[in-house]
Amino acid sequence: MREIGINFGNKTALVQLWAPQAKKVELLVTDAGHRLALKKGHLGHWSLQTDEIKPGDKYQFVLDDDKKLPDPASLAQPDGVHGPSQAVDLNALTWTDKQWTNPPLADYIFYELHTGTFTPEGTFDAIIPKLDHLVALGITAIEIMPVAQFAGGRNWGYDGVFPFAVQNTYGGADGLNRLVNACHEKGLAVVLDVVYNHIGPEGNYFANFAPYFTSKYQTPWGDAINFDDAGCDGVREYFIENALMWFRDFHIDALRMDAVHAIKDLSAKHILQEITERVDILQQQTGRNYYLIVECDLNDTRYINPLKHGGYGINAQWTDEFHHALRVSAGQQQNGYYSDFNGLADLAKAYMDGYVYTGQYSAHREKKFGSQIVNNPGQQFVVFSQNHDQVGNRMLGERSNQLYSLQMQKLLAAAVMVSPYLPMLFMGEEMGETNPFLYFTSHQDPELAEAVRKGRKAEFKAFHAEGEAPDPQSVNTFQNSKIQWQLLQNPERQTMFEYYKALIALRKQLPALKTLNRKNVKVEVDTNKQTLTLY
Amino acid sequence: MREIGINFGNKTALVQLWAPQAKKVELLVTDAGHRLALKKGHLGHWSLQTDEIKPGDKYQFVLDDDKKLPDPASLAQPDGVHGPSQAVDLNALTWTDKQWTNPPLADYIFYELHTGTFTPEGTFDAIIPKLDHLVALGITAIEIMPVAQFAGGRNWGYDGVFPFAVQNTYGGADGLNRLVNACHEKGLAVVLDVVYNHIGPEGNYFANFAPYFTSKYQTPWGDAINFDDAGCDGVREYFIENALMWFRDFHIDALRMDAVHAIKDLSAKHILQEITERVDILQQQTGRNYYLIVECDLNDTRYINPLKHGGYGINAQWTDEFHHALRVSAGQQQNGYYSDFNGLADLAKAYMDGYVYTGQYSAHREKKFGSQIVNNPGQQFVVFSQNHDQVGNRMLGERSNQLYSLQMQKLLAAAVMVSPYLPMLFMGEEMGETNPFLYFTSHQDPELAEAVRKGRKAEFKAFHAEGEAPDPQSVNTFQNSKIQWQLLQNPERQTMFEYYKALIALRKQLPALKTLNRKNVKVEVDTNKQTLTLY
Repeated sequence: MREIGINFGNKTALVQLWAPQAKKVELLVTDAGHRLALKKGHLGHWSLQTDEIKPGDKYQFVLDDDKKLPDPASLAQPDGVHGPSQAVDLNALTWTDKQWTNPPLADYIFYELHTGTFTPEGTFDAIIPKLDHLVALGITAIEIMPVAQFAGGRNWGYDGVFPFAVQNTYGGADGLNRLVNACHEKGLAVVLDVVYNHIGPEGNYFANFAPYFTSKYQTPWGDAINFDDAGCDGVREYFIENALMWFRDFHIDALRMDAVHAIKDLSAKHILQEITERVDILQQQTGRNYYLIVECDLNDTRYINPLKHGGYGINAQWTDEFHHALRVSAGQQQNGYYSDFNGLADLAKAYMDGYVYTGQYSAHREKKFGSQIVNNPGQQFVVFSQNHDQVGNRMLGERSNQLYSLQMQKLLAAAVMVSPYLPMLFMGEEMGETNPFLYFTSHQDPELAEAVRKGRKAEFKAFHAEGEAPDPQSVNTFQNSKIQWQLLQNPERQTMFEYYKALIALRKQLPALKTLNRKNVKVEVDTNKQTLTLY
Repeated sequence: MREIGINFGNKTALVQLWAPQAKKVELLVTDAGHRLALKKGHLGHWSLQTDEIKPGDKYQFVLDDDKKLPDPASLAQPDGVHGPSQAVDLNALTWTDKQWTNPPLADYIFYELHTGTFTPEGTFDAIIPKLDHLVALGITAIEIMPVAQFAGGRNWGYDGVFPFAVQNTYGGADGLNRLVNACHEKGLAVVLDVVYNHIGPEGNYFANFAPYFTSKYQTPWGDAINFDDAGCDGVREYFIENALMWFRDFHIDALRMDAVHAIKDLSAKHILQEITERVDILQQQTGRNYYLIVECDLNDTRYINPLKHGGYGINAQWTDEFHHALRVSAGQQQNGYYSDFNGLADLAKAYMDGYVYTGQYSAHREKKFGSQIVNNPGQQFVVFSQNHDQVGNRMLGERSNQLYSLQMQKLLAAAVMVSPYLPMLFMGEEMGETNPFLYFTSHQDPELAEAVRKGRKAEFKAFHAEGEAPDPQSVNTFQNSKIQWQLLQNPERQTMFEYYKALIALRKQLPALKTLNRKNVKVEVDTNKQTLTLY
């Protein structure tokens, strides 16, 4: 059971809140109008055992008779980020996946999807009927972009402000429960994208409660989350509890932790190491396997090295550089971060060495970058020819279908699938989706909305793209990013689907592709013929 | 030879400056009035080969016809931090220590001294006649507080702004050359304290030249030195060159790097790891041994673990916690950072485990702190009952003699000397110096001087000390901090000296004390009797 927020035991609720600066903390049960005092414990951890709140009740915390605020560990925000929290009994989730066994990570073939745009309805329940399509394709794991409650109904998920609350417009905790059951019944693992490097801008009430942030480190989102400054223990426990909850209470099979290079922690034990250790203990308790995957832009194997070799013990990391080298090989203009990549020679390096930058000078970063991978096997690296970021961070959000010929799309797919790494598809690529995947938001705060519009424009300086960036706040931008399932009726799309299906089947059957041994891969480059031979 | 600043080869000088933003760079040879244009090379590294500057000539760099500035890699600042730099031929230093062999680090018995206050004259040359005293005492290494050029003539050294220039008032490069020769002739190793975590406040012209700082990280001194942000390669090379210079050109035996916890670097290769690697190469080239020691307030063995085990390869670190536990055992009030220490039980832990905080909650830091030392031998830890910080950071700068009885002073000395770690004395403790060691500065900038006065007062809030802090800017504060050599005439002082001498001799002779095996130490604590037994 969580050791944070409101949780239900034998008929009574245990209410817990970390608020070290508060002199008084009450629980306000909204409909009943009850105000119940919490008792202050060690280091500002307040608590209360009560039977006056039931699952489904809405509530707020009242600090010092003054501020009425939602619960930082809220499990549901039925009225959005500014409204009251809602009590949820995690024990009441219904699990039908007793037979499920998480496959070895080496067998993962990822399919990244965004709940809001994967289906017309944009809900977890709407995903379920599409799972047969994914099973037919040969996918073994869906990777769901972040589902933590964000402002409004349209967001990639990285603006989440309630890391424990499943987005209400997606279907909340119950909806996610049903989706995971359905995936496990169909033999699909579920990977969840979680954000531990920042809290979103709207509905972020954290600073009222405790020192969740520190000005010691600056990130693209402002003050960093406090993982090593005074008071950090409560913050560390908060995120550890979050990781544990997804595995234990939602039967998630793997977490993909967003941009961990923006997690600043000089503690003797890095927070990622501590998460690994705590998840290891949970594995022993439940007898299930869980995987930790990071997005990490440091080219530093410390993150994925075993604990006993001084690493943080993370199972795998995303490898954007494979993507960049592949894209430039396919004709992508060398602008922005692509300016660091030279095409086939770099792609060959990515096939053999994993990282392209292993210590040499990067003109884009204006410094030497990265380190050599020594002992890490192929299954520690996730590769792709598209993902939400690489598509959506283009000004016009073009998927491969809008950029490349059919032949080139097939070549890109094959390049990923024959790699000695873990392959990932981005939703729709298996049918050559023609819609873009744009950057969209639904901030309620007008100043923030305007800042996001401006920020979006500033971001495209490096790309020198023409025309205006679509307005992230517009409903159309969101609607235009949806998967068009009717495309599958089109014979050309169907051919693409069959091609992906055949590729994935081949990968699963051929021992040379199945065994992810990076050191067995030999690559030859012929730059005149623009060919690259793997054997 | 240095690859930075002005260096002399076969009759001509090679002039190098990193100034990526400059459109024009000239060398102004001050007395001759010559202005010589440098040529821009790769990544903003400007250079010039010329015979128009000679050793001893004063010079400045002129950026964009506008700013006349001293050289960031200046080897001498004869007129202080704001004046021109002076060319020095490092090859012209005279070395008489060919016979010298750096002893094993396990044999080091450190004596920390501050050049300005160790003698009435406050110079390197004045230290030389005192070396016989140290040899008689049994010391094997002197550790010199930082000598990089700072503003004025009175400073601990941590406000240095020219890391390559030896303080003019101490005797400059030639003076240091003579001192190192004299030490090596007498069998003493020389440890130099260097500051790579910040640049001092006055005479800090770095930002005019290149991105030496980054706002990504905040330190007690403001923006951190840029070890991992855009442009960091030039900054990293700057400090690597500095470390190499002291070993290669000044025959220093070990560097003590100040407060490396304030060095913020998330590169795949940490700057300390890179320094270790580069010093290793230098060792192979010169056939000499050099040691790297850090002050590090993280209780994290990553810094001192071998490179091959994911560490940074540093030879040893200071262990302040041994000091704190020892002091509280001796009766020190548990205020400020001492509030974390409980006396004998913590001292026993320090004897056995090295770190006192190995992951438990620290009330002073308001977080869990530290990690367990597993495989690191005793010779990786430097311990002391006094040092410049622990004495000088008291409001009144009292040395042990002003705080403890003679018996207790002897007990403190013995506690250090029987430890399985590397012992360090602070100048004067061997004769029970009665003068304080106060915090002193000689900033020329009145605003800065006032800010330092205020900062000093604010620092003592936690100590609740009574009365006024002595004015750091006053000459008296500096003069009152000087060692009183006439004390040695006093029979009581002479007894103390003989006691230290006997203790050190015992440590060198007894195998149980000589072999620094932390795991062979057993400690028993009897809190009733307030005794601690080591065996």
